[in-house]
Amino acid sequence: MKRHTSQRALGTPRSAIRELLKLTEKPEIISFAGGLPDPETFPHEELAEIAADELRGHYRNVLQYGLSEGSRTLRRAVIDWLRTQGLDLSLNQVLVTTASQQGLDLLAKAFLDPGDVIFCGLPTYLGAIQSFSLFQADKIGVPLQEDGMDLDVLEEQIAEARRVDKVLKAIYVIPDFQNPAGITMSLEKRKRLLEIARQEDLLIFEDNPYSQLRFAGEAVPTLKSMDENGRVIMLFTLSKVLSAGLRLAFLIAQEDLIEILLRMKQASDLCTSKLTQHLAARYIKDYGMEDHLRILRERYRAKRDAMIAALEKYMPTKEGITWTRPDGGLFLWVRLPEGIDTEEMFPRALEHKVAYVSGSAFYVDGGGKNTMRLSFSVNSEDEIEEGIKRLCQVVREELAAKRVGLTVA
Amino acid sequence: MKRHTSQRALGTPRSAIRELLKLTEKPEIISFAGGLPDPETFPHEELAEIAADELRGHYRNVLQYGLSEGSRTLRRAVIDWLRTQGLDLSLNQVLVTTASQQGLDLLAKAFLDPGDVIFCGLPTYLGAIQSFSLFQADKIGVPLQEDGMDLDVLEEQIAEARRVDKVLKAIYVIPDFQNPAGITMSLEKRKRLLEIARQEDLLIFEDNPYSQLRFAGEAVPTLKSMDENGRVIMLFTLSKVLSAGLRLAFLIAQEDLIEILLRMKQASDLCTSKLTQHLAARYIKDYGMEDHLRILRERYRAKRDAMIAALEKYMPTKEGITWTRPDGGLFLWVRLPEGIDTEEMFPRALEHKVAYVSGSAFYVDGGGKNTMRLSFSVNSEDEIEEGIKRLCQVVREELAAKRVGLTVA
Repeated sequence: MKRHTSQRALGTPRSAIRELLKLTEKPEIISFAGGLPDPETFPHEELAEIAADELRGHYRNVLQYGLSEGSRTLRRAVIDWLRTQGLDLSLNQVLVTTASQQGLDLLAKAFLDPGDVIFCGLPTYLGAIQSFSLFQADKIGVPLQEDGMDLDVLEEQIAEARRVDKVLKAIYVIPDFQNPAGITMSLEKRKRLLEIARQEDLLIFEDNPYSQLRFAGEAVPTLKSMDENGRVIMLFTLSKVLSAGLRLAFLIAQEDLIEILLRMKQASDLCTSKLTQHLAARYIKDYGMEDHLRILRERYRAKRDAMIAALEKYMPTKEGITWTRPDGGLFLWVRLPEGIDTEEMFPRALEHKVAYVSGSAFYVDGGGKNTMRLSFSVNSEDEIEEGIKRLCQVVREELAAKRVGLTVA
Repeated sequence: MKRHTSQRALGTPRSAIRELLKLTEKPEIISFAGGLPDPETFPHEELAEIAADELRGHYRNVLQYGLSEGSRTLRRAVIDWLRTQGLDLSLNQVLVTTASQQGLDLLAKAFLDPGDVIFCGLPTYLGAIQSFSLFQADKIGVPLQEDGMDLDVLEEQIAEARRVDKVLKAIYVIPDFQNPAGITMSLEKRKRLLEIARQEDLLIFEDNPYSQLRFAGEAVPTLKSMDENGRVIMLFTLSKVLSAGLRLAFLIAQEDLIEILLRMKQASDLCTSKLTQHLAARYIKDYGMEDHLRILRERYRAKRDAMIAALEKYMPTKEGITWTRPDGGLFLWVRLPEGIDTEEMFPRALEHKVAYVSGSAFYVDGGGKNTMRLSFSVNSEDEIEEGIKRLCQVVREELAAKRVGLTVA
């Protein structure tokens, strides 16, 4: 069937993470691989009540087709919520999407022709790489520093791309608790990034799944809240803060950009489920997000602490082994000595009944082989300690194997 | 922002129907425009019970991320159902999509490069035109006859496209109660279409939203059930038979094709809501579809009868005015005399508080100006009679206006 397959599909491999998650589904494996939210944080009792009520009392509405731009009730609920975070939005600046992956798909559809350049972090979110790749964009990776993207390098890369007559379109960033690296971009860098985008006439795609999950340190304003010339498009999802199974997120931008994205939405899935939209809208309106988020943050902080404590306890102290200490989000990022390949190490991890994601999956330039992403979100604190203990044993064995020159299958 | 917009987005107009539906939302207007299912057919009591139970008892599962290929429970439920219709499918031949519009998007993504040829009916479903246009395919329209696509013309067009070195990819058909024309393809034509596809090495996209809604005449086997060399991909949606708001449909094809479509699905929205999937799966398993479909068919048949009776009663008898008498589905197709433009006539219809969709929206070649689509699905029989009465008055006035040479605004 190769004759029929499109060029874009031929260039799209299966998701490495997805393949890998299948291997880690066995109950005896402690998996730090998935980026799943803790299911015990889903407000299921409240959602069960709302669902029964909506389906009995408003079935003509919630079981029917909805507006492509999304239900007004949900858009109003999220607008009210985001007003408390310095964003003053009108109804036509918000488009509901079937979660953030669709947001990425719509952004690529609307703005990226084959060969167009999009800048993104080294490392960056795998799902974004997939969407941009599918639309045959040229992804240029910009190394991350401790306070976010290296903007000197970004400027050099912009100049270089212009020299070879590339069409430059956008910069993709996850400013808060970046997936996978857990890094947060400083205020200074955010300001400078906005200035670079203005000067170079680039859009900024600000992916914001984790900003509400800050459990330490002080919040930094979103790029969107500082966006003076309407070039930031923010992706804001409910997957991590309410439920991943509702498949709900928002594209937030100036009306003229939303108008283009809305046409893409129509052709992509017509509209998002009104039932799931109303469940979320009612929950946000009736219960508010603040109490709920406070519990989430507490829970994730304890889990992060457990993971860091276990790493400190069990990880061999050796030059070149480091990990991040994120103030929010779901992930730690571990760097091992050069020469260790976490993809090669993976079978050994499975033998020891522990799993992670190899960092190289998040690099558009083939780098990151000695890194890995660990999620602390779904396991209990006891499981985290036990899993990290196993993982550190894996690392210890791998270091030993490499030292004696053994080949690891 | 035009500099940033992709070529595909610049070439994608807003949906005419969608704009028009906004005009028809006023309660005083009797609208035959939308293709909405009758909300009184949604089994809301059962779904309310299932929803509360799933959210209380299985929240860890239904509120979490799911498999990109769709929940096994739902795929199994639809496989069991379709086995009663002559389709014997394995789990890996079924991919759950966020309703059929996403199915169309995935088909275009997977198989259509810019300039590739896809053949479709004249007229054909607007949402398909949108998806194929977005991916810059070359849509070649094939006139419909009373028993389906004119296959002699199709063969000529294939030969002609080959002469100019086009890349031919697929034929898009809605064999049962076609949207918008209400036409069903005969068994003979189905067989010949499969043979043409085999000879010419083309895929067939068989869009099947209405086959379950046959209320008269005898069922004709689906193309998929007669597909001997794995080139038919069937889109099968729950929107018209269960609920449009759940946003659930299936792509059904050979494993190698599903494998490609699955990669497209991952990049498009990662997975469909597991909550809505489980609502549908439980409903199909616990209640079965047969009783439910019997009620739907009865209901839609009565409405079709009411619409045809009203047309016979009120429509001016004039050469060139005809309408279809479909054995299923949701739509009638009305043809007015040449020289009448139903788009121009539309403001007059709104004045008379009745609405329809202009047929030209369904033509990829700019034709169909004197046609319109009428949906009999949502209005009561009384509303149908009153609405058709108004519409016939509109037609009468338009005919008179045209005769005396008045310009209609």
